[in-house]
Amino acid sequence: VALPAGFDPRDVIARKRDGQDVPAGDLRAFVLGYAAGDVPDYVAAAFLMAAFVNGLSGAETAELTRAMVDSGETLPLAGIDRPKIDKHSTGGVSDGVTLVFAPLAAELGLAVAKLSGRGLGHTGGTLDKLESIPGLRTDLAPEELERQVELVGCAVAGQSKDLVPADGALYSLRDATATVASVPLIAASVMSKKLAVGSDLILLDVKAGSGAFMKTPEHAAELARSCVELASYWGRRARAAVTDMSQPLGTAIGNALEVAEAVRLLKGEARGRLRELSVAFATEALTEVGGVEREVARSKAERALDSGEAAERFRRMIEAQGGDPRVVDDPDGILPRARVRRDVHGEGPGVLVTVDAEALGRAAASLGAGRARKGDAIDPAVGIEFLPKVGAGGGGDERIAVVHARDDPSAEAAAGQVLAALTMGQDAVQVPPLVFGWYGSEVHEGPGGPDERR
Amino acid sequence: VALPAGFDPRDVIARKRDGQDVPAGDLRAFVLGYAAGDVPDYVAAAFLMAAFVNGLSGAETAELTRAMVDSGETLPLAGIDRPKIDKHSTGGVSDGVTLVFAPLAAELGLAVAKLSGRGLGHTGGTLDKLESIPGLRTDLAPEELERQVELVGCAVAGQSKDLVPADGALYSLRDATATVASVPLIAASVMSKKLAVGSDLILLDVKAGSGAFMKTPEHAAELARSCVELASYWGRRARAAVTDMSQPLGTAIGNALEVAEAVRLLKGEARGRLRELSVAFATEALTEVGGVEREVARSKAERALDSGEAAERFRRMIEAQGGDPRVVDDPDGILPRARVRRDVHGEGPGVLVTVDAEALGRAAASLGAGRARKGDAIDPAVGIEFLPKVGAGGGGDERIAVVHARDDPSAEAAAGQVLAALTMGQDAVQVPPLVFGWYGSEVHEGPGGPDERR
Repeated sequence: VALPAGFDPRDVIARKRDGQDVPAGDLRAFVLGYAAGDVPDYVAAAFLMAAFVNGLSGAETAELTRAMVDSGETLPLAGIDRPKIDKHSTGGVSDGVTLVFAPLAAELGLAVAKLSGRGLGHTGGTLDKLESIPGLRTDLAPEELERQVELVGCAVAGQSKDLVPADGALYSLRDATATVASVPLIAASVMSKKLAVGSDLILLDVKAGSGAFMKTPEHAAELARSCVELASYWGRRARAAVTDMSQPLGTAIGNALEVAEAVRLLKGEARGRLRELSVAFATEALTEVGGVEREVARSKAERALDSGEAAERFRRMIEAQGGDPRVVDDPDGILPRARVRRDVHGEGPGVLVTVDAEALGRAAASLGAGRARKGDAIDPAVGIEFLPKVGAGGGGDERIAVVHARDDPSAEAAAGQVLAALTMGQDAVQVPPLVFGWYGSEVHEGPGGPDERR
Repeated sequence: VALPAGFDPRDVIARKRDGQDVPAGDLRAFVLGYAAGDVPDYVAAAFLMAAFVNGLSGAETAELTRAMVDSGETLPLAGIDRPKIDKHSTGGVSDGVTLVFAPLAAELGLAVAKLSGRGLGHTGGTLDKLESIPGLRTDLAPEELERQVELVGCAVAGQSKDLVPADGALYSLRDATATVASVPLIAASVMSKKLAVGSDLILLDVKAGSGAFMKTPEHAAELARSCVELASYWGRRARAAVTDMSQPLGTAIGNALEVAEAVRLLKGEARGRLRELSVAFATEALTEVGGVEREVARSKAERALDSGEAAERFRRMIEAQGGDPRVVDDPDGILPRARVRRDVHGEGPGVLVTVDAEALGRAAASLGAGRARKGDAIDPAVGIEFLPKVGAGGGGDERIAVVHARDDPSAEAAAGQVLAALTMGQDAVQVPPLVFGWYGSEVHEGPGGPDERR
C-alpha cells in the first residue's frame, strides 16, 4: 500500500496537534500507511502524543479502529450457525471468566470462538492458563477454530499475526512513548480485534480497581462507553460491564491454579464472585441473542454449572485442542504442581479492608507465573491461592493464602508480598459490588446499517 | 553515553505530556541519550509533540539547549583577542546582512567568526551565496577559521557536524513530525549553535513578515525574548532585533545576485534597507562591546562603507578563503551569469501595498536558486532582482523586476509568479518600520556568573 498522491502525514499530525478533527480519509491513509511501513514510527509517535493530549472524537476513534481492522485479514466465521458471542476482559488478577464462560455459553447453545492473549505484567492471560493443561494447543488455524466451534460450541486460540497487524505495532509504540493510558486509543485497540472477528454480540468486561488498568469505576465506565459507541458506529451489537477488580476475582492466581479453580466452578463444586460473574455474562449473552427472559437465562446458566454439563463441555473443548481431558476429573493430578507449598497466616485480628490486587498479581508473576516482557518464559505450576474477600475474614491467625513456588526463598518472598498487600481494620467494611453497571450499543439495522457503513 | 541506571525516557515524556516540568537531570539524560542513539527517534518524537502542545518553561528550554550543546564539541575561539561578535538571522528573502556585516564589523575592529547554513525552501543561505564566488571554500577547519579571523577579522564557514549534533537530528525529526513551529524548540535550536561558539556578543535578527518563518512582529518578539533569555540563563550577552521581512530586504534574490549587491553596498555605491540594517547591527555591536557612543559607532560604520574600506576587508576575506578577489572590482564579470535575462514590467498604475516575499523566494528557488530538500543542487547564477519597495513605485509600466533564468520557459513562469506576488493600490501606504524593536539579555557577572553556571 503506497500513500495516496499528495498525502503528507504531517498534515494529519498538525491537525491533531492543533486540536482539530482529522478528515476520515486522511486518518485512514495515515493508519494504513503506518501498517504498511510507509509512515515511520517517529511520525506515528508524534500523532499518538497529539491524540493523547488533545483527544480523538467519536468519529475519529471509529475511523482509526476501522483502518486498524482493514490493515489485516478478518475472521468472519460465516460457517457457524449458532449465535456467535465474543468476550473480552481488559485484564485483571485471578480473572478466569473466559475459562468458565466459554464452555458454559457453549452448553447454553451459543458459539464462542475466542481469540485470547498472553499475560503481561500483573495480569494473567487465558492462553497461558490453558496451556498449563498437558498437550493443549492454542495455535489453531482459522479453519480449525471454526470447525471446532461448529462441533463443540467453543474454542480458545491465539490471535493470528495477520489479524489487525496495526494494533500490535501501535501498541508497542504506545508502550514506548508513554501514550498507553488514553481512552480512545485503548478503545480502538480493544475494539479493532473484536470488529475483525464475526460475532453477533460482543461482551466486554471492563475491570476497575487496584488490580485493573482503570483504577476507578468512573474511568472504566468512560472506556466501556467508548467501546460500545465504537461498536454502534460500525453496526455491531456490544454490551460492556464495568466490574470490580479491587480484589482478585477468584481465589487462584497462576496458570494451573486458575484452571483447577475453573474446573471446580464448571463442576458446580465452588461458589463465589468468579462464578457469579461468569453466570452474569452467560445470562447477558442468552438474553441478548437467545431471546430468553433474563431470569430464565440465569437459571439455565446456574443449572449448567450445577449439573456438571458445563464441565463436560470444557472436557470436549480440551480434547478437541489436544489437551488431556482427565484434567476435568482430577485437576490436581494432571496439572503441573509446584515443588514448594507454603501457607500464609494472618497477622492479627480484624477484617480485610482493602487488597492491593496488582501487588498480588506481581507477587505471582515474581514466582514465575507471569512475565515482565513479551516473550519471557513462564512456569505454569506456580502462583498464589488467595482466600479472603474484602469485608470478611483474613484476621486472626487463619490461613489466608497458599504460595505455590519453585523454591523456599521465592515462596518466602511471595508470602511477605501477600501480607504487605493487605490492609486490615476493625470496622465494618462496605463490600464493593461485583458489577458497577452495564453499557449497551445502539444498533440501527436496515439501510445505512452494518453492511453499508462497513 | 549510556542512559543513567534506572532512567526511563518514558518518565520524561509522561511529565511533559501531563503539563508538568521535567527535572533538569532527566531532561539532560534524555537529550544526551537521544544524541547518542540510546533514545530512539520515536521516543524523541513523542517528547517533541508533548513539548509543542504543552510548552517548555524557561528553565526547561535552557536545560534542553545546554544538553544540545554538550552533545558535541564546542568552538571556544580562545585565541582571538578582538571582541568576538556572532550574528544569526532566522531567515528571509534577499537577506544579505551577513555578507555586508561580517567585513564591516571586522573593519570596525571587531572579530566575526560566523558559522552559516545553506538555503532551504524560500530562504537563502550565506554559504550558498559565498560559494557563487569562483574558488571560494567554506569548509574551514576550526584552526583555519580561527587563524583567518585573527588575520582578517572575519570568516564565514560551514558548521562542523561535530558542533551540536543533537540539533541537526532534532531538527530533522521536528520537520518530519509537524513540531517545527514551537518557540522554545526554535529558540533552543538557534541558541544551541550560538552558545557552542565562543563570543562576547550574540546578535540575533528575528525576521517578521510574509517572507519570514514568523509572520507577525508579536510572534517574532516572543522568539527574540526566548533567545535572549536563554543567553542570560547561560551567562552570555545577546541582543535580538525584530526586523521587517514583509518584503525582500535588498533588491537581489539569488546567490550570485546577492553577492553582487553586497559588493555594491560594501563599496558605498548603493543605499536602501539592506545597508541600513547592516549598519544597525554594526552599530549595535560597536556600542555594546566596543564602548563606543551609539552615534559615533553609526558614523564609523557609515564611513567604512562609503570609503570603500569595508569592501577591501571583504576582498581580504574572499582571498583568505580561496575565492577570486576580483569579484570586488567587477562582480558582474567574475560571478556566474544566467543565460536568460527577462525584464518584468508593472501591470498598471498605483503603489505597492503588500508583497508576498515568501512567494518571491519560492519563485527564485523554482528557477534553481534554492532547494526544496536538503542536499539538492542549486544554480548560483539564477534569481530575481526585485526593485520596488512597499509604499513606493511598482505602478505604471515601469520595470519592477529582472528574472535571471536558465531558459525562457522558467523565466516566463517566474515573471508570472513575481506579478502574482504583488498587491497594488491607490491609497497612501504605511511603510513598515525596518526594526520593530531590540531585546537584550541581562548578564550578571561575578560569582554565579557565566563560568559557574556553565
